[in-house]
Amino acid sequence: MLMRNIKMTLSYDGTAYHGFQDQGPDVPTVQRSLETAIHKLTGERLRVIGAGRTDAGVHALGQVINIRTSGTIPVERWPHALNSVLARDIVVRDASVVHPDFHSQYWATKKRYQYVIDNGPVPCVFMRRYAYRVYRTLDVKAMSEAASWLEGKHDFAAFRSVGSEVETTVRTLYELRVERCGDMIHITACADGFLYNMMRIIVGTLLEVGKSKQPPKWVKEVLMSGQRHLAGPTVPGLGLCLLEVVYDDADTHNNDPAR
Amino acid sequence: MLMRNIKMTLSYDGTAYHGFQDQGPDVPTVQRSLETAIHKLTGERLRVIGAGRTDAGVHALGQVINIRTSGTIPVERWPHALNSVLARDIVVRDASVVHPDFHSQYWATKKRYQYVIDNGPVPCVFMRRYAYRVYRTLDVKAMSEAASWLEGKHDFAAFRSVGSEVETTVRTLYELRVERCGDMIHITACADGFLYNMMRIIVGTLLEVGKSKQPPKWVKEVLMSGQRHLAGPTVPGLGLCLLEVVYDDADTHNNDPAR
Repeated sequence: MLMRNIKMTLSYDGTAYHGFQDQGPDVPTVQRSLETAIHKLTGERLRVIGAGRTDAGVHALGQVINIRTSGTIPVERWPHALNSVLARDIVVRDASVVHPDFHSQYWATKKRYQYVIDNGPVPCVFMRRYAYRVYRTLDVKAMSEAASWLEGKHDFAAFRSVGSEVETTVRTLYELRVERCGDMIHITACADGFLYNMMRIIVGTLLEVGKSKQPPKWVKEVLMSGQRHLAGPTVPGLGLCLLEVVYDDADTHNNDPAR
Repeated sequence: MLMRNIKMTLSYDGTAYHGFQDQGPDVPTVQRSLETAIHKLTGERLRVIGAGRTDAGVHALGQVINIRTSGTIPVERWPHALNSVLARDIVVRDASVVHPDFHSQYWATKKRYQYVIDNGPVPCVFMRRYAYRVYRTLDVKAMSEAASWLEGKHDFAAFRSVGSEVETTVRTLYELRVERCGDMIHITACADGFLYNMMRIIVGTLLEVGKSKQPPKWVKEVLMSGQRHLAGPTVPGLGLCLLEVVYDDADTHNNDPAR
């Protein structure tokens, strides 16, 4: 039977889910929802491999998954077919056949996340599920300066929660940008990988600077210390969104027409 | 006791409500939620007067209400005080003391509504409560041309649902704009008043043109006919948002310092 490796990009509203990763039949997760939907379509019980294990309440604009399927549905039909059985808060955006060895998590070269803070005079009612509300007017310039200390290749041990085993806590943060867009503040990060809760602890730390509790350069001290307790708190998941997962396209592509 | 007339601007996500207007204790409405919240704050049982009676599922960015209260809370505290007792899907944005005769509905000189259509290749998961999904790619240029036939002072009898008693069906549509913003199509209207379902029937009619079922000039024929059955269908409420209610500021303002 022909086995294809299919890569799919999806968006989801994380509000109703306890994160991406499967936690058994009684816990709503994105992974389980996808696996159930695929089972309805092809009859296969298969494992969905996600590029990023987004936490409870975290959203995605461009999460990437891959599945190995012997289903015969043409690949261009997958998005519509899956969307017709998925709840409306998960949407498959595209699907393509990729290299048989492609792995959405291991092959990812970069990920981009965005954290949104609602910093207007009153909360925006339409963003209440997608932005973390901070009443006090934040000093975006100071946050931006603080963010620049974190860019580059560093040991981000101070910016991760315990509970994850990793070989190294060194990551390269290609970009960390803080911008005001009307009442919202957008914090966008691009890195070769993110440690557990890294983005949410970075934002919590930048908030200490934005509230003028710490000067921008304090962030550098936190980074150097490697001590989690010196960094700011972990901000809530609802403001976070996985924007994009980047791959080296030349490798990803399925060049073998026989597959 | 000092009686003040207080004007407030509010936003709400209409998803959970059966419209603005009170329909008794068992039906969730914006009006009843506000009246319950005010009762909690001041102990008063009073009537909230809304500028626009938005229907079930319709949202508001800038709905305007007024209340006559003998409560002693300083006016600048009203937004925060009300927001602390309201559900998170209704937010009071500002409050001011206005002329004793000010009436949010009768004194309104213009209203602006926006209808959002999600016309991307796949639905946007974050807009599913705020945009009407249309799969077929719409001809925005044709819709825009059709819209221009409706601008001006006309009898809009063809663009209203029965069930509302009005003295006249003549309204002035100052502007009706159709624009593509990425995957979304924004239809924005400004008029001196809107008949029952007028905006939703206008959008349903423009959609017939956008889907190339009718030429742009057909909209003029519908307008001239005054026949509701010749216009397009009433599109769902979820895509509609009351953006703004405009008043003649000179009249609205409370010039009497004793009040």
